Amino acid sequence: MTVQPAVLEQHGQDESFHRGWPPQAVLFPESTEEVSRVVRAAAAAHTPIIPFGVGTSLEGHVAALRGGVCLDMSRMNRVLEVNADDMGCWVQAGVTRVQLNRHLHDTGLFFPVDPGADATLGGMAATRASGTNAVRYGTMRDNVRSLTVVLPNGSVTRTGRVVRKSSAGYDLTALFVGSEGTLGVITEVALRLHGQPEAAAAAVCAFADLKGAVETATLVMQSGIPVARIELLDELQIDAINRYSRTSLRVAPTLFFEFHGSAAAVKEAAEAAGALAAEFGGSGCSWAEQEEERRRLWAARHSAYYAAKALRPGCAGFLTDLCVPLSKLTETVLAAQALCRRHGLLAPLVGHVGDGNFHMLLIIDAGNAAEVAAAKRCVDEMVHLAQDVGGTCTGEHGIGFGKLGHLEREHGMPALLAMHAIRAALDPLNIMNPGKLGSQPADFAAAAHLDDPAAAA
Amino acid sequence: MTVQPAVLEQHGQDESFHRGWPPQAVLFPESTEEVSRVVRAAAAAHTPIIPFGVGTSLEGHVAALRGGVCLDMSRMNRVLEVNADDMGCWVQAGVTRVQLNRHLHDTGLFFPVDPGADATLGGMAATRASGTNAVRYGTMRDNVRSLTVVLPNGSVTRTGRVVRKSSAGYDLTALFVGSEGTLGVITEVALRLHGQPEAAAAAVCAFADLKGAVETATLVMQSGIPVARIELLDELQIDAINRYSRTSLRVAPTLFFEFHGSAAAVKEAAEAAGALAAEFGGSGCSWAEQEEERRRLWAARHSAYYAAKALRPGCAGFLTDLCVPLSKLTETVLAAQALCRRHGLLAPLVGHVGDGNFHMLLIIDAGNAAEVAAAKRCVDEMVHLAQDVGGTCTGEHGIGFGKLGHLEREHGMPALLAMHAIRAALDPLNIMNPGKLGSQPADFAAAAHLDDPAAAA
Repeated sequence: MTVQPAVLEQHGQDESFHRGWPPQAVLFPESTEEVSRVVRAAAAAHTPIIPFGVGTSLEGHVAALRGGVCLDMSRMNRVLEVNADDMGCWVQAGVTRVQLNRHLHDTGLFFPVDPGADATLGGMAATRASGTNAVRYGTMRDNVRSLTVVLPNGSVTRTGRVVRKSSAGYDLTALFVGSEGTLGVITEVALRLHGQPEAAAAAVCAFADLKGAVETATLVMQSGIPVARIELLDELQIDAINRYSRTSLRVAPTLFFEFHGSAAAVKEAAEAAGALAAEFGGSGCSWAEQEEERRRLWAARHSAYYAAKALRPGCAGFLTDLCVPLSKLTETVLAAQALCRRHGLLAPLVGHVGDGNFHMLLIIDAGNAAEVAAAKRCVDEMVHLAQDVGGTCTGEHGIGFGKLGHLEREHGMPALLAMHAIRAALDPLNIMNPGKLGSQPADFAAAAHLDDPAAAA
Repeated sequence: MTVQPAVLEQHGQDESFHRGWPPQAVLFPESTEEVSRVVRAAAAAHTPIIPFGVGTSLEGHVAALRGGVCLDMSRMNRVLEVNADDMGCWVQAGVTRVQLNRHLHDTGLFFPVDPGADATLGGMAATRASGTNAVRYGTMRDNVRSLTVVLPNGSVTRTGRVVRKSSAGYDLTALFVGSEGTLGVITEVALRLHGQPEAAAAAVCAFADLKGAVETATLVMQSGIPVARIELLDELQIDAINRYSRTSLRVAPTLFFEFHGSAAAVKEAAEAAGALAAEFGGSGCSWAEQEEERRRLWAARHSAYYAAKALRPGCAGFLTDLCVPLSKLTETVLAAQALCRRHGLLAPLVGHVGDGNFHMLLIIDAGNAAEVAAAKRCVDEMVHLAQDVGGTCTGEHGIGFGKLGHLEREHGMPALLAMHAIRAALDPLNIMNPGKLGSQPADFAAAAHLDDPAAAA
């Protein structure tokens, strides 16, 4: 256990612009049993517990809003079992996705879910993470088969069974995936693995305008062309990546594609996508079939957030994470970009557009109160845009405390009261990451002010 | 509303051998608002509510164990919206799967989940149903995007948003899928649709022994050969189908395959599967590419339950529904078959073996107490076989009251107490299909005796 101020600070702060709320202590458990003992003690003392992976969340998920103890899961970092015949594995919650894929390297299998950061698999399960591969391989919702969870009373359970399907009761696995540490502590994760594709090819297509790029992406999906990844970047974001990653991509709205499958299937899919792109003003599609080349391309894509922040050194990134039905994607992307312009904000765009999901990265001088206020208004307006066409305020980043204020408009009060009832039933002492998901919905409006200087403890 | 005894009887009895428990009245609501009014009134009077689709469940799901009012959803049978661009639709809960696919016929889309019976989509969501297509298209867990639910307090909610992904709070959609009417009444269902395949081919392969058939199925899956369906039938079941459906299939352990995709992909997959089958003693694979021929084949497969029961007219079918990891499938199938022989029971086998799921259909003279007792022991032993290798007591039939007694061994007491806490939080008056999922786990042992004559009301 540590109470060193620097360590506390680090554990109360994620990668977002949200202010940090340090816990009172940080523990480094090494087993499920140890987590269970800690949770029992915390319950007896009514002390909050905040699980922590590597702190790459983006909505203040790890903020210790009511103080308490942070459980840093980094010492639970063993791959427990790989079962190639069943295409699955069990890992401890502190294993990161890159670590797992290194471990799997020689098995012919891989784990596809790839948020930009090298997050822990426990954290990714807790936040229902996804990333660029979700369009083909699904999100954590689809790739978590079972969890070992320490419940808020300290008892330990394994959710469901590691089989391809079951109808044996409430789907506790799905309930814990995305629960953000508010229903229990995830200590082990059973994951679905996938065969490494026989062949893969990536392509970069530049477009005359953003509309053509988004319409191409939408039509590729609606035509059922099997893409493994299909990512949109606007010209601002391409420029940022060129500067940050020393690439020399053409500065234009751009789609990054990747195709997985047999050599013949990859070729067929790539040609079909290329033909559609050409119809919508895409040109100069350049191909990368070598793994090294593809790896460089996707490393550049994954650096997008850091590249965007580097456009204005010292500034903070306000991230949005809209996800809408595909049929509404073009109108929503264009309206969101127009909103940022109207507010005078620098906001590169990247998106997992095959899923209808995109991010505007508002790059803000956090010391400029007027700019911060404009950014907050702009983000609210963008969320409303997405919700009004049936979309969600967050495709993959989750709620933390930063998006609590958007939930009522999205789900309505009956659903929020149901979520609160579920949380209160499992965590009657309100010790699991309190002040976040499943809290009294009446308190959500106040969460919007947690970043204000006046809210400092 | 009706209180006619014949109608009450019919609504308290499903297609299983479990005895019926008629409700005190049956209502036929025509809208979500009407369901909400009924639930509010039932809550005020502490009257149980049991939702009812077409009554094709197999574990006594619709039994009115505590009396109360059955909500027959058959008048809520409108397809509300089909959105081809987003590959989705909204239907009222009483729409059946065959009705939906007829409605979709000219759209190029279809809904793949196909339990044998022509069940309602509300019932299929409530029981997390699947069927022969799940190996490629997933179960109701994967194909329900959102639900309109009347909660136990009468409030109405739509769960989540109809987008490809979201991290906005607890996954209420997944919680209600498989909740078997114990957390609320599902009145509308948003479904994911799929493109009708460009080409399809079916094949029937007979094997020298059951082991060869199961090992072929396992290896087809492990090799990643893209099958749309892969079904196992033993010689008893083939014989039953020949008699019932007037087919002339060779009486031997048999795999039914189906492949979907481009013409080239279908051919490639079929050849790869055929080559594997030959290695394991499969011979005489006969192909059906014409839709009419394929339809006849699958109609025969879907009649398996009725065909098996016709082997002993007047007898009842005790169904098992084991699902195990693929790596354990061969040993479990062989052990289950041996168990039935040891107990002297007639038990044809069918299975969705690509998912590790199979059914032994015990054909029992319900009037013969010794035979019934042997069947119950045999079913318990088979469930233990599956659970002991990491499997589940039910891949797709659900719990009803018939399998409550198997849940503690499968999930452990902490998980059952968590399920009970969730149910009690949402349904504090215990009016939603009481006596089933989410009840006090201490009461589950008693459920095993609900079929005994002494348990009659």
